[in-house]
Parts: sequence; C-alpha cells; structure tokens
Amino acid sequence: MDERTRIETREEVMFFDTDAGGVVHNLAYLRMIETARTRLGARLGLSLREMAESGLFAVVVRTEIDYRRPGKLGDWVTVVGRLESIERARFWCAFEMRRDSDQTLLVTCRQQLAMVQMPEGKPARLPEVWRSEFAYLVK
Amino acid sequence: MDERTRIETREEVMFFDTDAGGVVHNLAYLRMIETARTRLGARLGLSLREMAESGLFAVVVRTEIDYRRPGKLGDWVTVVGRLESIERARFWCAFEMRRDSDQTLLVTCRQQLAMVQMPEGKPARLPEVWRSEFAYLVK
Amino acid sequence: MDERTRIETREEVMFFDTDAGGVVHNLAYLRMIETARTRLGARLGLSLREMAESGLFAVVVRTEIDYRRPGKLGDWVTVVGRLESIERARFWCAFEMRRDSDQTLLVTCRQQLAMVQMPEGKPARLPEVWRSEFAYLVK
Amino acid sequence: MDERTRIETREEVMFFDTDAGGVVHNLAYLRMIETARTRLGARLGLSLREMAESGLFAVVVRTEIDYRRPGKLGDWVTVVGRLESIERARFWCAFEMRRDSDQTLLVTCRQQLAMVQMPEGKPARLPEVWRSEFAYLVK
Repeated sequence: MDERTRIETREEVMFFDTDAGGVVHNLAYLRMIETARTRLGARLGLSLREMAESGLFAVVVRTEIDYRRPGKLGDWVTVVGRLESIERARFWCAFEMRRDSDQTLLVTCRQQLAMVQMPEGKPARLPEVWRSEFAYLVK
Repeated sequence: MDERTRIETREEVMFFDTDAGGVVHNLAYLRMIETARTRLGARLGLSLREMAESGLFAVVVRTEIDYRRPGKLGDWVTVVGRLESIERARFWCAFEMRRDSDQTLLVTCRQQLAMVQMPEGKPARLPEVWRSEFAYLVK
Repeated sequence: MDERTRIETREEVMFFDTDAGGVVHNLAYLRMIETARTRLGARLGLSLREMAESGLFAVVVRTEIDYRRPGKLGDWVTVVGRLESIERARFWCAFEMRRDSDQTLLVTCRQQLAMVQMPEGKPARLPEVWRSEFAYLVK
Repeated sequence: MDERTRIETREEVMFFDTDAGGVVHNLAYLRMIETARTRLGARLGLSLREMAESGLFAVVVRTEIDYRRPGKLGDWVTVVGRLESIERARFWCAFEMRRDSDQTLLVTCRQQLAMVQMPEGKPARLPEVWRSEFAYLVK
C-alpha cells in the first residue's frame, strides 16, 4: 500500500451532521469526504495553499455515493480515501466510511476530479510526476 | 408530460452557496436538489407531514451527480426534477439544473430512493397506487 | 412603513434544516436570515451583482440571535427583516421568524453590518443616499 | 485554570467553510464553535451519548458573535471555549477563535444554553454537581 495515495480521517458525528430522521444527513457525509479528499490532495502536492499559489485546482466533476447504513449522533466515523486511477487530465478517488465502534460500512463513494487552471478555468494536465510515480494507477 | 411526476424549483445563489473558488460549492447543488425532491415527493403523496405521520419515509440510498458548468453568486438557477423509474421498493429521480439567464446546463443528477418504515428502519414497498398510476415508469 | 427598508421571505423547513433533536438546527435559522438579508440589501442598492461590480460589500460583523421556540420539519416559516439603524460606516438589521400556521415567534435576531471596499478590505462609508433617504434611522 | 471547564479544538479551513468573498463564511465559524461546545459539554458530563440516554439536553438559546478578522482557505484555526457562568437552569459559554500562524483573533462568541428535558421539552435544572464544583462560576 502506497501511503502517499491513501488517507484516513476521523470525525465525531455532531448535531449539525444529523437530521430529524435521527441519523446523519446525506450532505454531511460528503462534507466529511471533502475533508479527507483535501488531506489526500495535500499528500499529492495539491494542498490548499499550493493550489492557491499555482492557480492549478482539482475540481470535483462527478460524485457517486452509496448510503449503506445510517450513522448516528455521537458516532465516531473513519473515512478512508485513496487515489484510485489517473487519466490525462482527470483522476478518481474512492472513499469508504465506517463506524469505529463496530466497523459497520456506512458509505462508499467515488469522485472524479479534473485539473483546472484558474482564473481562466481552462482544463489542465495532471502533474507529470503523478504519471511516473503512480504508473500502476494510470488507466 | 405527467405533471404529478415533475417539479420545478428556483433558487438564487447566495454567499452561503459559494466557496473561495468564486463558484457554487458542490454541496450547495445537492441542498437545492433536496428541496426540489421534497416538493416532488409532496406531489406523489410523500409530503414531509405525511411521512412523519405514517412513518413511511423515502430515503436517498444513491446519488450520482455530474458538475458540468459552475454556477455563480447571484445566479438564478432552476432545478427540474422528475420521477424517472419505479421498482418494487425503490425508485429513481432525475434532476437538471440550469442557469436562468442563459439556460446553461450546470448539473445533472440521479438519485435512488428506498422506502423505509420507521422507527424500525425496515424496507417497505412503494405505495401501491404508484405502480398502477405510473405503470409506464415501472422497470 | 417604508417598504424599501423591509423584506419578507418564506421558507419550508427541509430535512437538511433539522437535527436529531427533531427540530430546526440553530445554524439553519441563520441561513434563512441570510437569504432575507440579501433580498433586503437588493432593495437598498446592495444586490449581489451590484456589490460584485462596485467591490463595495456589506459584511456581517456581529450577530445576536435568540432562539425562542423550536421550528419543526415541514413548517412554513416567514422571516421579516428590516433596516433598523444607520451609522457612518455600519448599519443594523433586525429579523423576526414566525411559524406561519400559528404565528409562533421562533427567533429574533439583530445583525450589524459594515461596508467594506474589496479587494483591499478597507472600511467604507454607507452610500450617501441612505443618510438622506432614511434620515429617521440615523443614530 | 480549571481544565474541566475549558476546551481547545483545531480546525483547518476547507473550501466548504469559505464563500465567494474569499474568506470563511460566517456560518462556518458557528459550526466550528458547535464542535468545541460539544467537546466541552462532554467534559462536563453532557456528552452526546449521555444526553441521548438521559433525555437531558443543553440547548442554545442565545448566540452573540463578533466577526473581527477574516479567516482564509487553508488556515488552521484554534477554538478556545470555556464555561463562563452558571445560573439555575441556564449557563453561558465563551469562545475565542484565533488563526494559528499569527495568533490573529478572528472571532469572539458567547452562547447561552438552557437545560431541557426531552421529549417533553420542559426546562430543567443544571446538574447539581455543577453548582458545587464550579461555585465560582455561579452568577
């Protein structure tokens, strides 16, 4: 397992994460996933500051998310994210969320991101180094 | 076009919908889609009050969303939602979001929902009347 | 009542507005108030587009909010906002939120806003026309 | 300093915390404060699980928040919260938020909370032990 392409983050389910159904609201999982994705990006040379300086941003263009079991108030949840595959100008990340107490799988998610050069908003290539270092992920 | 299975909602993009990239944040589109989906549910006999009374809730189990063009602060956006297909215990809704000023397609989204009997959390069948009234949507 | 300094907006309480306590989450009221405040600003010549063009923004510098009764899922809520008072570089808005069905007062709120010239972030004076047109609001 | 009545939490400012003004949105600070408040509550015997079991909840009834300097994308921010004062059925917490890199004070906030016995929603007294252990905070 290449630790540069994998991240783990932990979150405690707060009231603001839940809804009147008594469970975690579907938007809250995606916010937790954004935190994991941002930390994964930082490992890959796409930290928030680096992106702000270079103007080269990774932008979510597609999300697929499956809600499998409901998280509850006070649960501790671990998000495991990894770089799944690399194309010329886009890449996929995959995420799993489990409740710490019983390892129940709550959510699986895949997100496709595109590199965009701002402020023009023009599509850009992935950093060259990715294709050499993570050759096994190139599709 | 069966107006019972279709909804249109309009939203003005507020500061809280945007992020430091200067565009609408990807979570905000899903919040707008929830509003459209809730209003569509109400047309189909699944209003928030009816669900609270019967304990029979429609729960999102999968979301697929494609971010095509960025919305901006102050844009008026129209969400068009429709009931796309019906299974025994699940159904799909489909959504398109366009900017009103130039009809640019910003987002397309599909969501699969499951009927759940609360508080047990047991899977339940769709209302019988759906299968007869919307027979053309049965997969 | 000067209609230029008053706004009314209506919101239906969605699942994403509620929490596991079964009531509206305290952040959701403030999001609804931001929508009312933005529409009030537009009446006063501070629309999102006008602010983006002039670079002269109204920024919240203080919020005081009292949570009086809980809103519930499916409630329709009316936010009434008004320009309360004007200083040289700042102004106050006041808001009341009531449940439509029984006129229960849910929330009262006051917010102080400052005019800021962006991108420098320098404090700026209120539009001159405010002090003449709304002289009765000058503190 | 009594460590039972004080909490420190740290947050990294994510895209979802910011708005098109390029700074942290005013709602995001309050979400961060809720996390700090929840962890402070846990130190005081009001963890999410304990509240869920006893039905005795601490509910925000008033927030006063001053936005002093803007936080930015990628900032690390520390929230310091403390139990400020105790009444019979209510208590105040106070919060300060600073940017880690330069200790700039971003936000100060006070929140009044009331004890409520759910599901009746009846006002309840603070835990007796608070008045003896934190006698110096009784107003």
